[in-house]
Amino acid sequence: MLPAESPDRTGHPLVGLGDVCAAADRIRGTCLHTQLLPVPWAPGGSTWVKAESLQPTGAFKLRGATNAVARLTEEQRACGVVTHSSGNHGGALAYAARQAGVRATVVVPHGAPQIKVDLVAAAGADLVRVDAVDRTAMCADIAERTGAVQIPPYDHVDVIAGQGTVGLEIAADLPDVQVVLVPVGGGGLISGIAVALRALVPGVRIIGCEPRLAGDAAASLSAGERREWAVADTARTVADGLRAPALGDLTWPHVRALVDDIVTVEEQAIVEAVRVLAGRSRLVAEPSGAVTTAALLSCADTVPGGRTVVVMSGGNVDAGWLASVLAGTSREAPSCGH
Amino acid sequence: MLPAESPDRTGHPLVGLGDVCAAADRIRGTCLHTQLLPVPWAPGGSTWVKAESLQPTGAFKLRGATNAVARLTEEQRACGVVTHSSGNHGGALAYAARQAGVRATVVVPHGAPQIKVDLVAAAGADLVRVDAVDRTAMCADIAERTGAVQIPPYDHVDVIAGQGTVGLEIAADLPDVQVVLVPVGGGGLISGIAVALRALVPGVRIIGCEPRLAGDAAASLSAGERREWAVADTARTVADGLRAPALGDLTWPHVRALVDDIVTVEEQAIVEAVRVLAGRSRLVAEPSGAVTTAALLSCADTVPGGRTVVVMSGGNVDAGWLASVLAGTSREAPSCGH
Repeated sequence: MLPAESPDRTGHPLVGLGDVCAAADRIRGTCLHTQLLPVPWAPGGSTWVKAESLQPTGAFKLRGATNAVARLTEEQRACGVVTHSSGNHGGALAYAARQAGVRATVVVPHGAPQIKVDLVAAAGADLVRVDAVDRTAMCADIAERTGAVQIPPYDHVDVIAGQGTVGLEIAADLPDVQVVLVPVGGGGLISGIAVALRALVPGVRIIGCEPRLAGDAAASLSAGERREWAVADTARTVADGLRAPALGDLTWPHVRALVDDIVTVEEQAIVEAVRVLAGRSRLVAEPSGAVTTAALLSCADTVPGGRTVVVMSGGNVDAGWLASVLAGTSREAPSCGH
Repeated sequence: MLPAESPDRTGHPLVGLGDVCAAADRIRGTCLHTQLLPVPWAPGGSTWVKAESLQPTGAFKLRGATNAVARLTEEQRACGVVTHSSGNHGGALAYAARQAGVRATVVVPHGAPQIKVDLVAAAGADLVRVDAVDRTAMCADIAERTGAVQIPPYDHVDVIAGQGTVGLEIAADLPDVQVVLVPVGGGGLISGIAVALRALVPGVRIIGCEPRLAGDAAASLSAGERREWAVADTARTVADGLRAPALGDLTWPHVRALVDDIVTVEEQAIVEAVRVLAGRSRLVAEPSGAVTTAALLSCADTVPGGRTVVVMSGGNVDAGWLASVLAGTSREAPSCGH
């Protein structure tokens, strides 16, 4: 693996520790330094969960969005920001923009989870609803017409640097951490965390966790080249935040250079992890946030032991679905892929 | 109101700030200094929730139990501790004792909530199951036979001092807090919090919150003398942690001297608060923990405004019941008593 701040083999410069430290200064006041919560029920050694569900918008995405908004020039601030999102990034950008006094527009596809649409609306952003196939074009069109700056959900240096503050906080709160489990969708969170942790705790094992049904990142890392999956395939997982069909142009070099391994988990293990997090840690987790707990509970053979931090990335979950999980309609035994 | 550390009118000395500060030193390492979580959806001004559900045993009770265990003499440690509890105190004492290497016995009545019995068992305590009417006698009998020290759930100076660390943390994290809402059952939590906050933030408004169906503390405070309710009456509330029929000999003088007001909430407001805490703050709350959020949402006329901390005291709730709440079977409009 390459040290942080080195250009990777494709020539893309990696985000550096300095970028993440600067982001930490910018997001203070809007984002929470989430405390590590002991997990007395974890199998094996000492384990803590970092519950990003406790952020004001219920997910880590607020960190990257806040950093990106803070980096706007005065001229850009006057034009506002725009993104397309069916998930937590939209709510995060809306909230971050409002906190900064900047106008935000979020293009939301018809069929997006209502709880995430509600987050965008609650933060006072302009909502534009379109068919899913039109969302990229609509976003670009709004940017061109209004001058609004497009803030993508993961493939953006300021977004990656903002998500990296999760890693800074882990290093500060548990300097002798040995293993960190991180959900992988588009790769923004694990890229940022890896930049910070590889620099501050060089020997830490950074393990990505992904649904097997959206296992493009695991396939990429094991092949040594980026693999893209069909949207129809990744759409099969219950973890709606991890359906990105491939890592990004910026995140893939980070993952290749800085991440130790990516494990995949079964759908039933994800559901079981949501149930366990609610019952035994009193945390509401969305399926995407629970993949790391799923790996902890079901992948004893592939996840290394030691002082472990489980990053639980968010908790915006449909109440009816959560009710069905808690009522015990999903009870299949979890299993694990690699 | 009397200053902290003064004897009250009945001659009972109140717990002092020094006792609470000493407790804070003792519980560090076992209990969490729970961070204040912003509540962006709260009506009115700035509001934070202090989620004691995030403690390792899912409730604030761990603070008092840990302090009480830490205060044992070497001779007492060798004999262990015993309590009777159908609730969070049993799990807390079991966990605190195990952390300290002390044997614990918990007498649990038949019919106690399974999730709370599981907590006791998970912490490795000896479980003794009896009919509810026999639990006090059984507890006393065990204490007499084995020399185990009885640690009651609230009416004990070390328990009150331990719960008071919640107040210390609020004062440290939000020195200009104006209003603190605290659940009231037996009164241990609000007594301890009031000792700490009245000393450190003299002008703060300390408001107890109670189910109207178990409104003995509100009745006591407004009558100026302690009132006891029939167990059959307080048993009507869904908030199983707040069914104590009266404040204690020790907690009543604290409440009378240091608490500003006690408001009561309706059952449907409690249920709605559980739903809102899960959906909008991603926190699993038990009904007893949600009474303060219920007051925030339904008692705008009686709860003062300003910078407010809502103490959410615990999250050990039956999964099936929570599922029914999330599925939306309870939708009556909340209302408020005083």
